[in-house]
Amino acid sequence: MGSSFGKLFRISTFGESHGGGVGVIVDGCPPRLKLDLEAIQADLDRRRPGQSRITTPRKEADQVEILSGLLDGVTLGTPIAMVVRNKDQRPQDYKDMEVAFRPSHADATYQVKYGIQARSGGGRASARETIGRVAAGAIARQLLKQANGTEVIAWVKQIHDLEASVDPSSVTPEQVEGNIVRCPDAGMAEQMIQRIEAIGQEGDSCGGVIECVVRKASTGLGMPVFDKLEADLAKAVMSLPATKGFEIGSGFAGTLLKGSAHNDAFLPTQDGTLHTATNYSGGIQGGISNGEPILIRVAFKPTATIRKEQQTINAAGEATTLSAKGRHDPCVLPRAVPMVEAMVSLVLADHLLRQQGQCSLW
Amino acid sequence: MGSSFGKLFRISTFGESHGGGVGVIVDGCPPRLKLDLEAIQADLDRRRPGQSRITTPRKEADQVEILSGLLDGVTLGTPIAMVVRNKDQRPQDYKDMEVAFRPSHADATYQVKYGIQARSGGGRASARETIGRVAAGAIARQLLKQANGTEVIAWVKQIHDLEASVDPSSVTPEQVEGNIVRCPDAGMAEQMIQRIEAIGQEGDSCGGVIECVVRKASTGLGMPVFDKLEADLAKAVMSLPATKGFEIGSGFAGTLLKGSAHNDAFLPTQDGTLHTATNYSGGIQGGISNGEPILIRVAFKPTATIRKEQQTINAAGEATTLSAKGRHDPCVLPRAVPMVEAMVSLVLADHLLRQQGQCSLW
Amino acid sequence: MGSSFGKLFRISTFGESHGGGVGVIVDGCPPRLKLDLEAIQADLDRRRPGQSRITTPRKEADQVEILSGLLDGVTLGTPIAMVVRNKDQRPQDYKDMEVAFRPSHADATYQVKYGIQARSGGGRASARETIGRVAAGAIARQLLKQANGTEVIAWVKQIHDLEASVDPSSVTPEQVEGNIVRCPDAGMAEQMIQRIEAIGQEGDSCGGVIECVVRKASTGLGMPVFDKLEADLAKAVMSLPATKGFEIGSGFAGTLLKGSAHNDAFLPTQDGTLHTATNYSGGIQGGISNGEPILIRVAFKPTATIRKEQQTINAAGEATTLSAKGRHDPCVLPRAVPMVEAMVSLVLADHLLRQQGQCSLW
Amino acid sequence: MGSSFGKLFRISTFGESHGGGVGVIVDGCPPRLKLDLEAIQADLDRRRPGQSRITTPRKEADQVEILSGLLDGVTLGTPIAMVVRNKDQRPQDYKDMEVAFRPSHADATYQVKYGIQARSGGGRASARETIGRVAAGAIARQLLKQANGTEVIAWVKQIHDLEASVDPSSVTPEQVEGNIVRCPDAGMAEQMIQRIEAIGQEGDSCGGVIECVVRKASTGLGMPVFDKLEADLAKAVMSLPATKGFEIGSGFAGTLLKGSAHNDAFLPTQDGTLHTATNYSGGIQGGISNGEPILIRVAFKPTATIRKEQQTINAAGEATTLSAKGRHDPCVLPRAVPMVEAMVSLVLADHLLRQQGQCSLW
Repeated sequence: MGSSFGKLFRISTFGESHGGGVGVIVDGCPPRLKLDLEAIQADLDRRRPGQSRITTPRKEADQVEILSGLLDGVTLGTPIAMVVRNKDQRPQDYKDMEVAFRPSHADATYQVKYGIQARSGGGRASARETIGRVAAGAIARQLLKQANGTEVIAWVKQIHDLEASVDPSSVTPEQVEGNIVRCPDAGMAEQMIQRIEAIGQEGDSCGGVIECVVRKASTGLGMPVFDKLEADLAKAVMSLPATKGFEIGSGFAGTLLKGSAHNDAFLPTQDGTLHTATNYSGGIQGGISNGEPILIRVAFKPTATIRKEQQTINAAGEATTLSAKGRHDPCVLPRAVPMVEAMVSLVLADHLLRQQGQCSLW
Repeated sequence: MGSSFGKLFRISTFGESHGGGVGVIVDGCPPRLKLDLEAIQADLDRRRPGQSRITTPRKEADQVEILSGLLDGVTLGTPIAMVVRNKDQRPQDYKDMEVAFRPSHADATYQVKYGIQARSGGGRASARETIGRVAAGAIARQLLKQANGTEVIAWVKQIHDLEASVDPSSVTPEQVEGNIVRCPDAGMAEQMIQRIEAIGQEGDSCGGVIECVVRKASTGLGMPVFDKLEADLAKAVMSLPATKGFEIGSGFAGTLLKGSAHNDAFLPTQDGTLHTATNYSGGIQGGISNGEPILIRVAFKPTATIRKEQQTINAAGEATTLSAKGRHDPCVLPRAVPMVEAMVSLVLADHLLRQQGQCSLW
Repeated sequence: MGSSFGKLFRISTFGESHGGGVGVIVDGCPPRLKLDLEAIQADLDRRRPGQSRITTPRKEADQVEILSGLLDGVTLGTPIAMVVRNKDQRPQDYKDMEVAFRPSHADATYQVKYGIQARSGGGRASARETIGRVAAGAIARQLLKQANGTEVIAWVKQIHDLEASVDPSSVTPEQVEGNIVRCPDAGMAEQMIQRIEAIGQEGDSCGGVIECVVRKASTGLGMPVFDKLEADLAKAVMSLPATKGFEIGSGFAGTLLKGSAHNDAFLPTQDGTLHTATNYSGGIQGGISNGEPILIRVAFKPTATIRKEQQTINAAGEATTLSAKGRHDPCVLPRAVPMVEAMVSLVLADHLLRQQGQCSLW
Repeated sequence: MGSSFGKLFRISTFGESHGGGVGVIVDGCPPRLKLDLEAIQADLDRRRPGQSRITTPRKEADQVEILSGLLDGVTLGTPIAMVVRNKDQRPQDYKDMEVAFRPSHADATYQVKYGIQARSGGGRASARETIGRVAAGAIARQLLKQANGTEVIAWVKQIHDLEASVDPSSVTPEQVEGNIVRCPDAGMAEQMIQRIEAIGQEGDSCGGVIECVVRKASTGLGMPVFDKLEADLAKAVMSLPATKGFEIGSGFAGTLLKGSAHNDAFLPTQDGTLHTATNYSGGIQGGISNGEPILIRVAFKPTATIRKEQQTINAAGEATTLSAKGRHDPCVLPRAVPMVEAMVSLVLADHLLRQQGQCSLW
């Protein structure tokens, strides 16, 4: 259990880093959705390794094959299964790791929990697992776009201590894709790239923050109590590898304001829609979207796998040292941008269908 | 939907702020758990209004009645239903709000989603809804304690810009309960109380940060991929009213470290358990608990309901102003401490049973 | 776990036969449904003990209290909690049973599973547990009626070896309620009543078959593969106490026909709806409703609790005998009619919302 | 939705009859289960078309490929994905059916529900969908065997009006596999084969009854109220294509007995286990297994697809006729035997893990 996500737009992923392949089943997608299959592959290409000089050199085309659920590119309403084969596996790179637990990685905890693990390549804990999420998220994104014109755009906001200046109300996908670090602030992007390269050359790694905006989301998404929209968004992105923090709207900084400053005043509108003067709420009030842009931030820790020698133990509990030889990213954020977009899209698509389920009879 | 939480240790809450009552069903609790019923009431007392001069004066004894699932105080393995009657309702305080949407509250979004709402008292969006969570959480806490000696302790870490100094490895429940703001740093607690009173007297409100530690959690809790322990913790606490941010371990500050500094080195142990030199991971690696203390932080925004006059609109979309007359908390954090403990306990209890479900056959 | 049913129109029941009370939470009901509260009580009255000379004399008014989810009788879209207090408990009647396992009852298996049980009154295995189902089913029935004019009508088709002749296409609720055994074939009803009385006077019990028709169900309800409408109906009614068999459409008798006789020929229609010449399918094809009447049959075993002396064992595994003294029904079928209607209504309401969820966007 | 089954041992199937392939993900399987991969293929071989002269001649090797979840044939505790490619597709056989709805098939209802369908080959309604179930069921069966020595054996009990005599307490898999109709009563099997051939030559089809026994199931499986073991078994087998009825234990015939005859007297045992003199309960009491053999029967209607000309309508609602040209089975029962075993095994495996989840802490 634990490899499925969503209640009505529900995905189930499978696959280890080294093995036959990875993939996903999307169950519950509405019928008669015309899918742009190239857009699915395009999101996978944004996620795949080897795409630039600041990502891991592992060579995987990550070409997706769709096994079911479509008729001439149109959804049937039945499960959509998508598979990507593993190609460039180098289990020999993981030989040391078979005897030494990698610090801050999942080796030790998987071993404790299951008494067995697919150590080679990281198994299910590998970023490779996110292929299924990104492929499914690309379908969710198209559903949202066709239903409401919704846009889901994420970008790198911060790398190490370098923070970009980005306007969520106007940022475009083209600006995000304008450089290999996926930061729409072009000047800061250049510094970020240099920082990642420098830290990578040290055999070290760094983290940062990804920001994501949803524009033109329909109102009424989310549920009272446990399945509040921000709660499901938090779970969604905190299930991505390497995440350590989540904020919606004003986030932690909002704790420094008084209520009179933090409250978002409602403005009169002609058409009965909601509109607020400020958006400290981040587009969600009482767990339910209010039509303003939904704005979240996600903290990613520095990559756990580094070339520098580290103290650790082996499976017998004895002290040893480890220097990673596997190919890995000095910084996961550029590749994590489509992952965040995917998870956010999946949450919104699920809540859109749940909203239809409960509230569309009359 | 949306009023249930958990897969195996599953709770379902009900009830509006003004109405017959609020409560919860706990389904899936193991049989033969000897419950301390006074401990359940004690957690409700920590949550209830009117407990101190810095909380809302609404008078509710919040006496819980257990309708089912017990035989002489021992669990039967069947659903445990708990009900608290509403007593001190003053719907007249909400008359203005029936025509004006309260800024940053759930009035407007509930109306948009459902086309109807129990505006009086906030309906399901009222903090009163959390009674069921706290009662259920108190049972989860006893389950964890009896199974593994697990301790779940939360406290107020920050109020407005006042930040306390607390050692998660040694803090005790008695220290937390030592003052009405529930901050174990006694000196800072006094300042926090004064700040809350001062801001309350202005007719305004403030927010802050609650920190929570889990000590002696069993290892192996959590699932790979979507139901990572930190993902479920994030969802759990972000489903509490007024939350804006979540951190596990190093959180957002961890993005400023390099991997070589952030990685938690494994130390050799005699007994095969895991132990790390540092705990930037916050007790969870690869989504699974490693035995180190689990440490999270939750940001709460300033209370949305304030006495100060605010700009807003009525249901017809016309501009109006609003000054809240309902009784409310100038700062939710002191009462939110048992809520955070409850949600964290519920997540851990659920994962403990899930771990038993998959991994206890051999 | 196991006390909840449904995915979108989801109910959770609680309560033992002897204890504070029994009840249900309905989560997911659409908002703005105008409820006829008397109709809920009316269905509970059809289920309650002591309603006629052929049912158990236990005296319970079974007056339902609705604690949440309504505003002036209209649904809010939030959980609807309903509670019925237990009144006429006679735990002393169960003293023998505390030491002897009642044959074909749940005493022994509950004890084996949980290592504890609320033996008095049967605990969760008591027919009293169905109060929550019937109350929730009455809401589901109103939802179906208002959405599509759907009618759900069940009746006693067979008692012991006495089989009634009933036309599912025209039978009315008034005919069912025309006698205390709830068999619309008035002549046969009289014989059934006499049979039940005679067997009851022997200290024995009998079973039979309940038939249920759904007329004017909307088309398209049900899912391919696992959540076929007949699969969910089967689970729903087989979860009622004392059920031993389920049939949809032609049922077991259909196995004697050849395909050419069993297939339901489609007839041309003017308005694009489906219509078949025969209805061996029972209104469901490929797991999905086709608009023809849905027709099911459910077998109920003879009541396990009888006054006649029986061989059994005590909790220590030693031989003993038992003669029930508790009040019980010589035949459960008259009271099971509203239970079957409730379960069928719950399945259809759930699938109606699921259909809206997946298929109402365009 | 609707393509997943189980709560803890959870499977999700995908795939249309004509398309890239079909398959399944098994999520929640315990780790460190040594799998016999040939046994999985063996069950698929018992299900596959073209295996004998009384099954459809469609040629599919149905060779399964396992993509994930195993390390050297041992389960990792992570999702096990299994895929079977479609090979021998003849979409041209379905050209007529694209304009005419096949009577008592899923064409018309899928079209009504989704507004689109993969008519060719039957899409998700094809028996081909059950490949995933059988492969997953074969894993569940091995889990049950290794955990408790549990045996799950199904056989053909009745074809058309020919009923076999079989002793559920002693029947062996070898006896079932002793002939192509999978009826352990060798004499009756010969008549059944002749009957199927004769009816097939007429261009017609027939149905029948499959019986299934579970021996050495552990006690305590199943839940009170909705997830009673017989309720989940009913749903499981009624989700198989062409099923019309379900019985547990005494079934419909049990309605003819009085309680004193139907009750299963408990016999004293030395070891504290339960044992009953008779087994009208079918191994389940109060929804929970008591250790006696679990015995169910499932009615299958005659195959809907026949060569004989039938009256029907086209998508425009106009009258037309249809004579099926696709390859199909004159009787589904011989191939349905492993499907029933699979579904029963899946239910038991799921409840075994649920029992561990709730009841194994102390």
